[in-house]
Amino acid sequence: MAEPAHNSRGAAQRYGARPTMKDVAARAGVGLKTVSRVVNGEPGVTPDTMQRVQSAIDALGFRRNDSARILRKGRTSSVGLVLEDLGDPFYSSLSRAVEEVARGYGSLLFTGSSDEDPEREQELTLAFCARRVDGLVIVPTSFDHRYLEPEIAAGIASVFVDRPAERIDADAVLTDNAGAVREGVAHLIGQGHRRIAFIGDQPRIHTASERLRGYRETMAAAGLPVDEAWVSMGSTAPERVHAELSRMLDDPQPVTALFSGNNRVTVAALRVLTASSRPVALVGFDDFELADLLSPAVTVVAQDPARLGRTATELLFNRLEGETGPPRRVELRGRLIVRGSGEIAF
Amino acid sequence: MAEPAHNSRGAAQRYGARPTMKDVAARAGVGLKTVSRVVNGEPGVTPDTMQRVQSAIDALGFRRNDSARILRKGRTSSVGLVLEDLGDPFYSSLSRAVEEVARGYGSLLFTGSSDEDPEREQELTLAFCARRVDGLVIVPTSFDHRYLEPEIAAGIASVFVDRPAERIDADAVLTDNAGAVREGVAHLIGQGHRRIAFIGDQPRIHTASERLRGYRETMAAAGLPVDEAWVSMGSTAPERVHAELSRMLDDPQPVTALFSGNNRVTVAALRVLTASSRPVALVGFDDFELADLLSPAVTVVAQDPARLGRTATELLFNRLEGETGPPRRVELRGRLIVRGSGEIAF
Repeated sequence: MAEPAHNSRGAAQRYGARPTMKDVAARAGVGLKTVSRVVNGEPGVTPDTMQRVQSAIDALGFRRNDSARILRKGRTSSVGLVLEDLGDPFYSSLSRAVEEVARGYGSLLFTGSSDEDPEREQELTLAFCARRVDGLVIVPTSFDHRYLEPEIAAGIASVFVDRPAERIDADAVLTDNAGAVREGVAHLIGQGHRRIAFIGDQPRIHTASERLRGYRETMAAAGLPVDEAWVSMGSTAPERVHAELSRMLDDPQPVTALFSGNNRVTVAALRVLTASSRPVALVGFDDFELADLLSPAVTVVAQDPARLGRTATELLFNRLEGETGPPRRVELRGRLIVRGSGEIAF
Repeated sequence: MAEPAHNSRGAAQRYGARPTMKDVAARAGVGLKTVSRVVNGEPGVTPDTMQRVQSAIDALGFRRNDSARILRKGRTSSVGLVLEDLGDPFYSSLSRAVEEVARGYGSLLFTGSSDEDPEREQELTLAFCARRVDGLVIVPTSFDHRYLEPEIAAGIASVFVDRPAERIDADAVLTDNAGAVREGVAHLIGQGHRRIAFIGDQPRIHTASERLRGYRETMAAAGLPVDEAWVSMGSTAPERVHAELSRMLDDPQPVTALFSGNNRVTVAALRVLTASSRPVALVGFDDFELADLLSPAVTVVAQDPARLGRTATELLFNRLEGETGPPRRVELRGRLIVRGSGEIAF
């Protein structure tokens, strides 16, 4: 990045020598403006001249370069999507929905995974800004988004999805996480369970702390005490989930039900529960493929990742098309899907 | 796209008016070259001048624009990834691996889904080229990639992954599909099955036809006739798979085993087999999450989508770093994972 502008490495020579519009103009014996008209499909060129220019384009292998036009027009028709992990099914559904909406507006999509690393989020986001994306859709992991203020002031639209922005006011599309958990935990209480475990993600993650809040509120509202040994927040790595759930099940007074805080926890917990001698009720946050084919089939409170992605991206393009007004927060409801594992009675 | 260069819509005014280096130079009372030196971290600026330029940058909210530098340098440090469907777990693992390798080379990633539509593949690929990506990683769906020849001639590197290029010679990283299927079908024959069904994807897709070839070769090598009623190629939509498999199972002489041609077929077939009164052996192509937790757990021949993505992207960057020589074809082997469903004996 610190190379002088005209330095060219060996590889750059091989991959960099492209014919320009000037070359086309010289070969066709016309002015630059005429070549530009042909390339951009503008009127005012005779068929004969158009033919001469096209021949020169073909002979030289000239290809239009959007970068130059982008510099002139101020819009790049591209959107940057920053999320936690492109390889996680929840985010791949969300990404696909963002891509579809962006495509409807003629926009291409940059994607990048933050891996729950705030520095990596910032690095990716600013790299997208330096490429002059028109807008950003961000699943945030940072505690402080003030680093985006100069970008937003410079005109980059941004919408946060799944989790809100921190320390700046910005559009956000979220699931009502606490509300969805309340429904799931109340369902377990309704089956007679009193000793209900909650295993969730890192508590610094907004969705994780909101879900924990939903659990605590529901237990409190039902007059049920929470033993802190039943609550475990941290990495969703299978090893950690295995260890924590095994500890809770091996207790002399074991938990009889589990609310798992996201699909990574649910999948890891299923491996422990399948090996368990005693049936343990389970409600998971987030639906997942094949949940209906397991035995018992897995009861979940489902978010709709595609709808989160679609709604956020529509909001982004509304802003780009001139919608003003204060930042908006859209909350989508979760949905309890009853399948069997959550109906194992105490 | 056909707007005059200086036309500005309402929204473009709000999102387009960015301060330029000229504005910074004027405010700081220095020359343009000095601002450029500060912005690009080049030497030759006194601390005092640097301070003046930085104050002007902060006051104006100036942000560096990579597009201009990209035009000068010829490299954009970006890669375009075209695949079938970003929402499919196979491709989301592959994408994540491409992203990780690209990141290691300081490159950002454009992603786009072709939806098995050759026109959409071409549209996406050429849109990435017009943004001057340095290279392309393509899961192709087109029958004819000659549309890429001018781009390749102009210096864009490209590697095909999962399926080879058609009608051009290009680097490709593939799984040995026929070989992997041979292993899976031989496994079913080894359990005593003779009436073995094969349900696969559209036969025009390279991987689908290769897998079918592997099935036919194995049956022939074992001296087993194939009734064409046992073979069904087409969309992987659940409805089609349900209908075809149900037809095969309802036959007076039903099939006793199924080889499913990809993970979409396997998941759809599982719903039919779970409801079937008779046990039917199953080996699926592609591993999938929770395959081990179903009952019976699902035997598969597994590809490694992350390894496909990594290998292809490393090959791409080797080319960008100057590796010459004829196009390379790398074949990765599949791996049989025995779990239960494939060991249901005849």
